[in-house]
Amino acid sequence: LVLIDRLQAQISAKKSPILVGLDPLFDRLPPALKPEKPSREAAALALYRFNEALLEAIADLVPAVKLQMACYELYGPAGLEAFERSVVKAKALGLFVIDDSKRGDIGSTAALYAAGHLGAAPLGRLSGPLAAQDFVTINPYLGSDGLDPFYKEALAQDKGVYVLVRTSNPSARQYQEAQIEGRALFEQIALDLQAQAQAHQGSCGYAPFGAVVGATWPAEAAKLRAMMPNVPFLVPGYGAQGGAGIDVMPCFDGAGQGALINSSRGIIFAFETEKTHDFAGAARRATLAMRQDLIDAFKQTGKLPVGWD
Amino acid sequence: LVLIDRLQAQISAKKSPILVGLDPLFDRLPPALKPEKPSREAAALALYRFNEALLEAIADLVPAVKLQMACYELYGPAGLEAFERSVVKAKALGLFVIDDSKRGDIGSTAALYAAGHLGAAPLGRLSGPLAAQDFVTINPYLGSDGLDPFYKEALAQDKGVYVLVRTSNPSARQYQEAQIEGRALFEQIALDLQAQAQAHQGSCGYAPFGAVVGATWPAEAAKLRAMMPNVPFLVPGYGAQGGAGIDVMPCFDGAGQGALINSSRGIIFAFETEKTHDFAGAARRATLAMRQDLIDAFKQTGKLPVGWD
Repeated sequence: LVLIDRLQAQISAKKSPILVGLDPLFDRLPPALKPEKPSREAAALALYRFNEALLEAIADLVPAVKLQMACYELYGPAGLEAFERSVVKAKALGLFVIDDSKRGDIGSTAALYAAGHLGAAPLGRLSGPLAAQDFVTINPYLGSDGLDPFYKEALAQDKGVYVLVRTSNPSARQYQEAQIEGRALFEQIALDLQAQAQAHQGSCGYAPFGAVVGATWPAEAAKLRAMMPNVPFLVPGYGAQGGAGIDVMPCFDGAGQGALINSSRGIIFAFETEKTHDFAGAARRATLAMRQDLIDAFKQTGKLPVGWD
Repeated sequence: LVLIDRLQAQISAKKSPILVGLDPLFDRLPPALKPEKPSREAAALALYRFNEALLEAIADLVPAVKLQMACYELYGPAGLEAFERSVVKAKALGLFVIDDSKRGDIGSTAALYAAGHLGAAPLGRLSGPLAAQDFVTINPYLGSDGLDPFYKEALAQDKGVYVLVRTSNPSARQYQEAQIEGRALFEQIALDLQAQAQAHQGSCGYAPFGAVVGATWPAEAAKLRAMMPNVPFLVPGYGAQGGAGIDVMPCFDGAGQGALINSSRGIIFAFETEKTHDFAGAARRATLAMRQDLIDAFKQTGKLPVGWD
């Protein structure tokens, strides 16, 4: 089975299209994890310990996790090490890993990023793959010769990408709604992505070329779902960014497939609202609540996947 | 003096608007630098040694260097360490450093990237700034709330940014020429950037908010220069990407100010075309030749800065 089919199988097996965002913030770590003497190394290690406990608490409930690179890069080389260790831990627990780096550059530089983030670095054959993440998020502003090297590497390594199509932030429309032949820019990017995806579908009908589609615009999400029948969605905006289960339903196809719904702070910092020290337990409870919310919304919209009841 | 004025003073003192790109590739390192037993750590160290020798050879000839993050990230934590060591070495030689990372994300995540790349990381007060780079390149696709956190951090730390406005790759026009009210998207981004720059000029008339403007479209460069009178340009595309001194002249204002011209592989790999082992000497000679080419072009177009003859 290729990557996207294996991911699809895990979503079905766990009855959970949830993508937990491991976006740890040092200032918000549980007090017990905070080092006495803060340094980059100590902070990065604390981030890893936080992730490790979270991963163990939620691994049976979700198919995949997403690591926001900005949270790790902030701590320099030690942060990147915490990132890599978290990826290794997640993979050991059978989870799929999305590297949320939003990289983008031209031609040969894009190829370097693709090699680094999708695991076929030049020394890979000697020192092992740089990291074992399965997908990387990428930025389309530079056009096809910024995207093609990632598609190529993904296919060669049985990995995948998610292209930023439509983001969930307030100013998303500022540039993403520029017009190309009567279409919004993000719609043109969607069509170009679908053309790539159509040629590379797995047996589940989806390709390893996905789209980031913000959940803050449900009507648009429905239109984008129709425009990209072979493109799996990564949907940020659930929970902390304001969306609920019912709002993200347009991101799924008629069979309740084709999307991963991301929640980051709503899960990993659930202990703050619960006012407990048991951050891992709180994350587990928040994940279960989110799963129930999504299943209720599936039922409400007649999209409950076969075998999930 | 604020950052942009200090940079301007260095350009004038060295009579050189050259930005050398430290974009090392392991496979193309001089044989003497290649480790016997390749590993990520050994490769990253070799990249640093290459940079170190290059920096010492060119430091008196140029005001600034640009480090392409993709070349370092490829080697994981060790690569990031080589990046940081190269920045420290460049700063010790009095050079300005542009961190070419092309980062971009929404709101709070953009703020994390800004903190990490522009030196005000949360633990900065304890462990020293994460790195001492002066500028970071950023991607505008997410709109103002992806850009504002970088502007804010830059002003707070006396650092700067270069926004990707118009890239030099063949597919640049694919999305960058989408239309907004009769303008190309990249022109709208230029106008929005100018509005920010106008409010934050140094005494040289430029702001620490710059634009990446590819040199492959000279007519457009002239138009963009007129649209952004307070925005310094970072101009890739000289040398390896096909441009010559005369082609980049439209990026300068009438007084020969307001642009840094980047050459990467044409300088750092000059030893290959020279067929010499003296890579540092070859880089120095290539830099001198580029400086002469730019001065000739300044003279030809009547833009030679005052005091440079």
